[in-house]
Amino acid sequence: MTQKIAILGASGYTGAELVRIIATHPSFEIVALSAERKAGQQMADVFPHLRHLDLPPLVKLDEIDFANVDLVFAALPHGLSQALVRDLPEHVKVVDLGADFRLRDPAAYEKWYGAPHVAVELQKTAVYGLTEFYREDIKNARLVAGTGCNAATVQFALRPLIAADVIDLDDIICDLKNGISGAGRALKENMLFTERATDVQGYAHGGKHRHLGEFDQEFTEIAGRKVEIQFTPHLVPMSRGILATCYLKGNAETVYQTLVDAYKDEPFIIVLPYGQQPGTGHVAGSNYCHIGVSTDRISGRALVTCVLDNLCKGSSGQAVQNANLMLGLDESAGLTMAPVFP
Amino acid sequence: MTQKIAILGASGYTGAELVRIIATHPSFEIVALSAERKAGQQMADVFPHLRHLDLPPLVKLDEIDFANVDLVFAALPHGLSQALVRDLPEHVKVVDLGADFRLRDPAAYEKWYGAPHVAVELQKTAVYGLTEFYREDIKNARLVAGTGCNAATVQFALRPLIAADVIDLDDIICDLKNGISGAGRALKENMLFTERATDVQGYAHGGKHRHLGEFDQEFTEIAGRKVEIQFTPHLVPMSRGILATCYLKGNAETVYQTLVDAYKDEPFIIVLPYGQQPGTGHVAGSNYCHIGVSTDRISGRALVTCVLDNLCKGSSGQAVQNANLMLGLDESAGLTMAPVFP
Amino acid sequence: MTQKIAILGASGYTGAELVRIIATHPSFEIVALSAERKAGQQMADVFPHLRHLDLPPLVKLDEIDFANVDLVFAALPHGLSQALVRDLPEHVKVVDLGADFRLRDPAAYEKWYGAPHVAVELQKTAVYGLTEFYREDIKNARLVAGTGCNAATVQFALRPLIAADVIDLDDIICDLKNGISGAGRALKENMLFTERATDVQGYAHGGKHRHLGEFDQEFTEIAGRKVEIQFTPHLVPMSRGILATCYLKGNAETVYQTLVDAYKDEPFIIVLPYGQQPGTGHVAGSNYCHIGVSTDRISGRALVTCVLDNLCKGSSGQAVQNANLMLGLDESAGLTMAPVFP
Amino acid sequence: MTQKIAILGASGYTGAELVRIIATHPSFEIVALSAERKAGQQMADVFPHLRHLDLPPLVKLDEIDFANVDLVFAALPHGLSQALVRDLPEHVKVVDLGADFRLRDPAAYEKWYGAPHVAVELQKTAVYGLTEFYREDIKNARLVAGTGCNAATVQFALRPLIAADVIDLDDIICDLKNGISGAGRALKENMLFTERATDVQGYAHGGKHRHLGEFDQEFTEIAGRKVEIQFTPHLVPMSRGILATCYLKGNAETVYQTLVDAYKDEPFIIVLPYGQQPGTGHVAGSNYCHIGVSTDRISGRALVTCVLDNLCKGSSGQAVQNANLMLGLDESAGLTMAPVFP
Repeated sequence: MTQKIAILGASGYTGAELVRIIATHPSFEIVALSAERKAGQQMADVFPHLRHLDLPPLVKLDEIDFANVDLVFAALPHGLSQALVRDLPEHVKVVDLGADFRLRDPAAYEKWYGAPHVAVELQKTAVYGLTEFYREDIKNARLVAGTGCNAATVQFALRPLIAADVIDLDDIICDLKNGISGAGRALKENMLFTERATDVQGYAHGGKHRHLGEFDQEFTEIAGRKVEIQFTPHLVPMSRGILATCYLKGNAETVYQTLVDAYKDEPFIIVLPYGQQPGTGHVAGSNYCHIGVSTDRISGRALVTCVLDNLCKGSSGQAVQNANLMLGLDESAGLTMAPVFP
Repeated sequence: MTQKIAILGASGYTGAELVRIIATHPSFEIVALSAERKAGQQMADVFPHLRHLDLPPLVKLDEIDFANVDLVFAALPHGLSQALVRDLPEHVKVVDLGADFRLRDPAAYEKWYGAPHVAVELQKTAVYGLTEFYREDIKNARLVAGTGCNAATVQFALRPLIAADVIDLDDIICDLKNGISGAGRALKENMLFTERATDVQGYAHGGKHRHLGEFDQEFTEIAGRKVEIQFTPHLVPMSRGILATCYLKGNAETVYQTLVDAYKDEPFIIVLPYGQQPGTGHVAGSNYCHIGVSTDRISGRALVTCVLDNLCKGSSGQAVQNANLMLGLDESAGLTMAPVFP
Repeated sequence: MTQKIAILGASGYTGAELVRIIATHPSFEIVALSAERKAGQQMADVFPHLRHLDLPPLVKLDEIDFANVDLVFAALPHGLSQALVRDLPEHVKVVDLGADFRLRDPAAYEKWYGAPHVAVELQKTAVYGLTEFYREDIKNARLVAGTGCNAATVQFALRPLIAADVIDLDDIICDLKNGISGAGRALKENMLFTERATDVQGYAHGGKHRHLGEFDQEFTEIAGRKVEIQFTPHLVPMSRGILATCYLKGNAETVYQTLVDAYKDEPFIIVLPYGQQPGTGHVAGSNYCHIGVSTDRISGRALVTCVLDNLCKGSSGQAVQNANLMLGLDESAGLTMAPVFP
Repeated sequence: MTQKIAILGASGYTGAELVRIIATHPSFEIVALSAERKAGQQMADVFPHLRHLDLPPLVKLDEIDFANVDLVFAALPHGLSQALVRDLPEHVKVVDLGADFRLRDPAAYEKWYGAPHVAVELQKTAVYGLTEFYREDIKNARLVAGTGCNAATVQFALRPLIAADVIDLDDIICDLKNGISGAGRALKENMLFTERATDVQGYAHGGKHRHLGEFDQEFTEIAGRKVEIQFTPHLVPMSRGILATCYLKGNAETVYQTLVDAYKDEPFIIVLPYGQQPGTGHVAGSNYCHIGVSTDRISGRALVTCVLDNLCKGSSGQAVQNANLMLGLDESAGLTMAPVFP
């Protein structure tokens, strides 16, 4: 049975990535695409790479008749989903790709996002969208909150280790290398080609990145005690991909075995042979995540590296994976395309 | 019914691209992968981005039992396919991605490739693999010769125009911008990252590029008279994609209408609205080809631009499209994945 | 003797490039830097790569005391220089890097720039800034109008050939490959890293690019008859550099000898050995220009390729070269830094 | 007085970078260039970006008459300098850019480089070439051993902190992002453009990188006790530049003040305002090094980041700086060119 899909915020990169994935999804049909400022245009005007598809025109959000929609992907700027989702008809399932429903604690939301949450009741019903760890809840959810792309990458590396208590929880350092598409399509001087093409630079350092709110929430819950990680993302000159290099205190072989065991039945999470390192180019354009584990000459150190495509497994691929579960479909439907290399 | 597929030369980029495409093909199963120098390794060792697939190990060519094979993709260095294909069992269909069977005239082959053809009888049976123009012959062929990637790009721009006699056949200039993957995975100093990352440069200029043999053969046959084009490829710092900018003498609107009519029923060839220009980023990772037509302030000039992904529509995607036809399948099977952007 | 220099529009790329060059110039001292929207900031805030220099703060234009200035570089958006230069004290020499004074005919200016010129009398005194061809006039000029970067590249390839009447003037096709810095630092969606990093695309095709005004003016004057060229620039994923591929009708060896003779005494223009092609990476970061000439298998064709760094020889380097002449200095002062490769 | 310079190993990237720098050096004259496999060629054939220079041809090493040479830059593959330098005439000063003389302890050399040192007596006379910390010794040295490029970057970040005892010496983690030119011009499959253009990946992880030998030697000596750091370099898609992100335990403000004090008189080392982060694009093509310091939300953490151009300040620029000192020249001679951005 075909599921009727609406994508809100279709003129951004995660919106386009949703369309790309759904183009070959066996059970999804896109019935509505919204984009406030580009309403009236065709998707082909906004994203020429989608020109071959037969898609509805971009409309304003309030022009959509949700009676005809089974599931909404909300790929809106942070802060806009709360009121919107609150006002949708009850029958519509929602996967939110923004940050609005990621933090269960309204105080934490206000701390990291600078404004009170406007749909606190709805927040209570939202399920955190890290599929591999919230699978059963997602199946029964009406509202799933997609994770941050950095948050997904680091959690795939660390969750099983924190749960198994095999690393020092007070000394976790995660150094990330991020493709530029993570910044979205908004106009910022420092995202111009000329500014980024030959530069590598850290940003949001010092504990200021909003994804820390997700780490704190999740890791503290898993550990049953407060866990705060040190986290520094860096912009590198590539469009897609995140590499998280995690510096841990623990026995590397134990760490390795813990990850192997945790992911042995997962279709999209692959733990490499011990000692090998993944590259972002090995997962670009796909829903796969590769994890590597090494030791160091200094005893008691474990190096865990994790790569995924921020637009796909880190965002829109994850969203489709969750939607599949919410709609009772095969979790992998439409998501098994191989990475594009070179 | 599943078709048993062997890929010869699986350690090169076109080999890997075949595996990528076949990974989500509904009717193909890869039963053998050969790579002479890397025999004994797993595909995951050679191409980590294919690690999630369950693939046979790389073996030497003579280890393959072709009794169990329906169709072979030969992605071998130029010159190696001739003897090989000659010696395959008769029941095996062959799509050759190399240059060995592209030129019907053995003298032309020897001129452009510097050695006599060793399978002249077999050459007579080979069909030129530009799907959209040799579709019926391909359906009945045992051996299909994939086109050069430059040759495909320029022919999509020009064949209908030459056939319709709407451009000056004595003054055709094609300036190409080529992604680096067209050079393959061989070790060459001028293909190092450092040499190419900030450089644009022409190569094989002055009428020396081997794809000219294909142009001469095809365009002369279509026109019924000798046609020689001027053709200059350039290396630009991107991995995938070819943009052909074709400078023609003719009426741009007539040129446009001729192309629109020629391709109106083609699933993979898209003519843009008049006056728009395609970009290589609009087709990367896909089997689609976009064509644009503009006029110039100088009357009597038509500018035709054409983009495709050299590894996909220009090579491995074309090969799968041809294999689909040879095996009686839907021509588009496995080939409708959308381009990956950004 | 030290010359007092002011740079107007110092927050753009050509402004920064002027500062970079002047940093090691033996006779220039920067005494004022203007940037309307960033006034009050330090250059190090706007361009961290210039942090090691001791520079005046950015100010608004009307805060500069020109009594203390010998020469102004105006790197302003098109249209702003006219009134400004008109109102400067007479003793101040001016090199304008914008388009305001390039076209001698006010009607041509209005045609290409869409508004009447507001300093027509001043325009009459402006010298076109293609140093190698206007050297004597530049020495005596108060106002020099820097050329467009595309205009410079193509003119280096073609001027001697048009003057010597060795090519067909009615069939000149110039295909350009352009680094992204040519678009400046302004915020445009299609200049984001993600939009350009894996894309090649033509723009301003069909005879609409403003630099055509310069070509028409210069080539028609040299030839003594109307000359219109066909010109298509393309954006390629690199920050700096222009490669012009010029398709000409003429004897390639004659063309080659004409260029060799024309440039044999020029310090910055280098004609490569016959048959070799230049790359943009061979001149990046420098004031040098490399030219290559080849023939084609089709008789009567000459292929001339020309590379330069659009920000340096195509703009700010040219500007310093002209300023050197205007101030009675060695023309090459401060300009002999070697290209940066890789 | 002009100093006569020979460059051994001129066909590699550090060799070319030496020529680039010396091109505008006020006191150096290149009298000999060696390259074993490319002997007989001109530098313009091997590095077209140096075509404008009047250089001696490439010769084999044993063709050079060292009687006429004041100073040799040896940019040879690791292991080749030892015997060579041993056999040079005594009057020739030597700056070795390779690894042969970096490690004072022959046992350490053998451990990290896998073979015994063949010039142990000479090793005793070699001075470690980190200019800012060995300045006086370098002035009097005949043989200076250039540092590794990673080694230079990390030492600029850490040496003053270790000397001042303001960080935990048992928990130093350095995560590096490296431009591809660090791998040199040798042919390796994983250094092809196509392999690196869209990939980020760690290498030599787990304590296997040879530059660790330098860190151990230097940091242990400074601290007066054994110090071992954890160090992971990563290949990112840019040609030049290293960013070291150093995760330290210590008071960030103390760390900051220590670095400010240490470098306040250094011409090439710039400490940014507290809390700012440097980018590799801010130093590319130059001899400058930028250092940033931030704190973290976790108390007791200091984040120190350091960028330099691996080919210039990390190798050939450092070499020229040392040569200037050895020859009694101004230390900055020829080295004040501003970075090239964008």
